[in-house]
Amino acid sequence: MADRFFEDYAVGAVAELGPVAVDAEEVVAFARRYDPQPMHTDATAAAAGPLGGLIASGWHTAALMMRLIVEQYLSPASSLASPGLDELRWLRPVRPGDTLSVRVTVIEATRSRSKPDRGVVRSMVEVRNQHGETVMSLQPINLVRCRPPA
Amino acid sequence: MADRFFEDYAVGAVAELGPVAVDAEEVVAFARRYDPQPMHTDATAAAAGPLGGLIASGWHTAALMMRLIVEQYLSPASSLASPGLDELRWLRPVRPGDTLSVRVTVIEATRSRSKPDRGVVRSMVEVRNQHGETVMSLQPINLVRCRPPA
Repeated sequence: MADRFFEDYAVGAVAELGPVAVDAEEVVAFARRYDPQPMHTDATAAAAGPLGGLIASGWHTAALMMRLIVEQYLSPASSLASPGLDELRWLRPVRPGDTLSVRVTVIEATRSRSKPDRGVVRSMVEVRNQHGETVMSLQPINLVRCRPPA
Repeated sequence: MADRFFEDYAVGAVAELGPVAVDAEEVVAFARRYDPQPMHTDATAAAAGPLGGLIASGWHTAALMMRLIVEQYLSPASSLASPGLDELRWLRPVRPGDTLSVRVTVIEATRSRSKPDRGVVRSMVEVRNQHGETVMSLQPINLVRCRPPA
């Protein structure tokens, strides 16, 4: 992947990332450590509950999305720490065996006035399953370095 | 912890959760798997960079927060899947060796009109480090069952 800089994140640009498989053992292991609710950790209880079976922690879905964004989208040459995100929605259950893909659309790109070597990029991220259903969406904010002078 | 229901989440109520330690090996292991950026995985590179050392993935901080919320705040008797969250902000670096605590304040509690057995609870969550600095904040949305009729 070639280095990308703030100037490369044009409003309206779309990137398609993935796929990533949702592994059953990892769903339970992640949830036991970070989100130990029966709907994520106990297959028997989850099967009897309103969701009809285990679902992944929403934080696990977010973590899988982040890996795709780091491996396939952000450039190490320009990616700075993120200040946050808005409007994260968990829209549909994610289940073991699902296959997720991610669409990133740049919705705003503003060069910093106080630090002119960088810009703020806002995106719409949609995580979809193998049926094309959107399971999660969010609007992350990223700080991205500008292309260095030649 | 006694069972809690929608009626127990009163606007203005504050809960203090924690502490949880940020383990150096876990910071790197989480990031290698889900957020493999050098600022989270490569101590040497991170020490030479603008942050002056390794910082935890923001998603790891969120996951540690979630564990405290599940273990010390939400009640298995009433907690339903969350529809999402708003205004997540990573405000300061979280570093290996830090100790985090969480404050949850109920900011809105609305009984569902379409499904009267549950309500929507909005909260402000602040994650603080051992210096009392807020390192992360967010406004999660939770669906919570109402107390069953006696």
